[in-house]
Amino acid sequence: MAKRIRLGLVGIGKIARDQHLPALAADDRFELAATASRSPHQVDGVPGHGSIEEMIAAGHDLDAVPLCTPPQGRHQLAAAAIEAGLHVMMEKPPAATLSEVEDLARRAEAKGVVLYTSWHSRAAAGVEPAREWLAGKQVTGLRITWKEDIRRWHPGQEWILGPGGFGVFDPGINALSIATHILPQELFVTEAALRTPENRHAPIAASLKLRTGGADGSFELDFLQTGPQTWDIEVDTDGGTLKLHEGGSKLALPGEEPRAAENREYPNLYAHFAELVAARRSDVDVRPLRLVADAMLVASHERAEAFTF
Amino acid sequence: MAKRIRLGLVGIGKIARDQHLPALAADDRFELAATASRSPHQVDGVPGHGSIEEMIAAGHDLDAVPLCTPPQGRHQLAAAAIEAGLHVMMEKPPAATLSEVEDLARRAEAKGVVLYTSWHSRAAAGVEPAREWLAGKQVTGLRITWKEDIRRWHPGQEWILGPGGFGVFDPGINALSIATHILPQELFVTEAALRTPENRHAPIAASLKLRTGGADGSFELDFLQTGPQTWDIEVDTDGGTLKLHEGGSKLALPGEEPRAAENREYPNLYAHFAELVAARRSDVDVRPLRLVADAMLVASHERAEAFTF
Repeated sequence: MAKRIRLGLVGIGKIARDQHLPALAADDRFELAATASRSPHQVDGVPGHGSIEEMIAAGHDLDAVPLCTPPQGRHQLAAAAIEAGLHVMMEKPPAATLSEVEDLARRAEAKGVVLYTSWHSRAAAGVEPAREWLAGKQVTGLRITWKEDIRRWHPGQEWILGPGGFGVFDPGINALSIATHILPQELFVTEAALRTPENRHAPIAASLKLRTGGADGSFELDFLQTGPQTWDIEVDTDGGTLKLHEGGSKLALPGEEPRAAENREYPNLYAHFAELVAARRSDVDVRPLRLVADAMLVASHERAEAFTF
Repeated sequence: MAKRIRLGLVGIGKIARDQHLPALAADDRFELAATASRSPHQVDGVPGHGSIEEMIAAGHDLDAVPLCTPPQGRHQLAAAAIEAGLHVMMEKPPAATLSEVEDLARRAEAKGVVLYTSWHSRAAAGVEPAREWLAGKQVTGLRITWKEDIRRWHPGQEWILGPGGFGVFDPGINALSIATHILPQELFVTEAALRTPENRHAPIAASLKLRTGGADGSFELDFLQTGPQTWDIEVDTDGGTLKLHEGGSKLALPGEEPRAAENREYPNLYAHFAELVAARRSDVDVRPLRLVADAMLVASHERAEAFTF
């Protein structure tokens, strides 16, 4: 067996504990050699450090760094890792701004290390089959509906409605990561009506008009959806309508029984990262973040009533 | 002499009449062979059409198309021109969204035609000398001040404060086009406080924090500046402070007399376009637009009082 990839994981918050650590524990291509976190969190039996600089300086013979911190500040962390010759895997969205991502891509290429901007929803079970089915088809319509309850999924996370917090686009960018991956033609935002609570800076609901391959589409986002939660993408084509439900995990093709499969998003991400590292190949795709930025560029703004968690 | 480049100019508004037509009249590398405009405007002695499709179909043996329409809708116009095998020069900002520009770059490359996303302020007299002076220097500070009177420069242009109108970033993107061109390191937006009139969708003033090569910077924008107008970029370096005033036309270097030169922005743009066409080389730079989008991504929002022209 090849030498294991020695990881220094940065940021031990909810996403690291819920997803990254279990995925890593089950994948023998990786070895968690160290962690860094500004919080007092540590992983049992793994050396912990208070900063990425300290972790790098401690000499754990690291190969790669998954970044599980919030997007603000990730540019600096990734730049430090790249400078130290380490491969980098980034949670979504990869950074706070597009210019930061482009800069990291340049730095990684110059240094000869792998940069992987991961989009976990793309690793959901229905996504690759959806992409294969859509290849070569003519898209005639597109409806994306992404409605979830902020209080249930982001309890008390004030930053998400603050500057740079993306608001309802924090989940919505997952839909865009799937759509840009499965659609056979480029996706554009042509209009965006954003609703922002009068006491917040990021939108809590949005209604976008999309365009792809000559067809119109819609993208409805709501962060105040109680009851049933909706993460649906429906694509009309010359071969019928494809339906991708439950965030990409459940696929229904015309004339076929719906398929659902076990959620293996993060194991899939790490499997892909292992392949990228073996091949010394980067995988940087800014399109989901670019579409959010595009929505901001063309946005009309409405005020919504004040929001408190 | 080489064959003249036969142009079909699209969009006969203020910028075409004030800048493009005089620059073209003085440049014998170009020949204005046709125009297209949805408005009744025409150019004396030049065949006019109501749409780009009609102009292309009329068979004027065109080589290239300058697009002088507003950015919304330019993607479709440029795509039509590229599809017809014509080179394209675009006014700033090149399109309404980043995804549209990326798409056009791909289409132009696939079709083997030249795409030029022009940034007229980069052609101001002080810009190239500023770039040369800054090359290799360590930047230690950056101050950009862009304050002008919307009522004076954009009288009655309601769209500029509407969705996709960019607001104060319509002039502000000129500063970013200069800054990205002259600075020796990448430029980032880290914070952006936007002030939007309660009856409008685009900001009328903004205060940004910037970062380049480890140095902090500021970018102050105001669209309500009466009296003296300010378009200044000051860059502190290890070799002293560079001052670029009057929108890039006036350069002051440490220990030297300020230099000012005749405004030849548009003649310079067309000279560059002629070179690009001769070399079959595209010049696509999205950075100024990307930085505006980045500002929108990290923005905090304040309401300003209602604005009427």
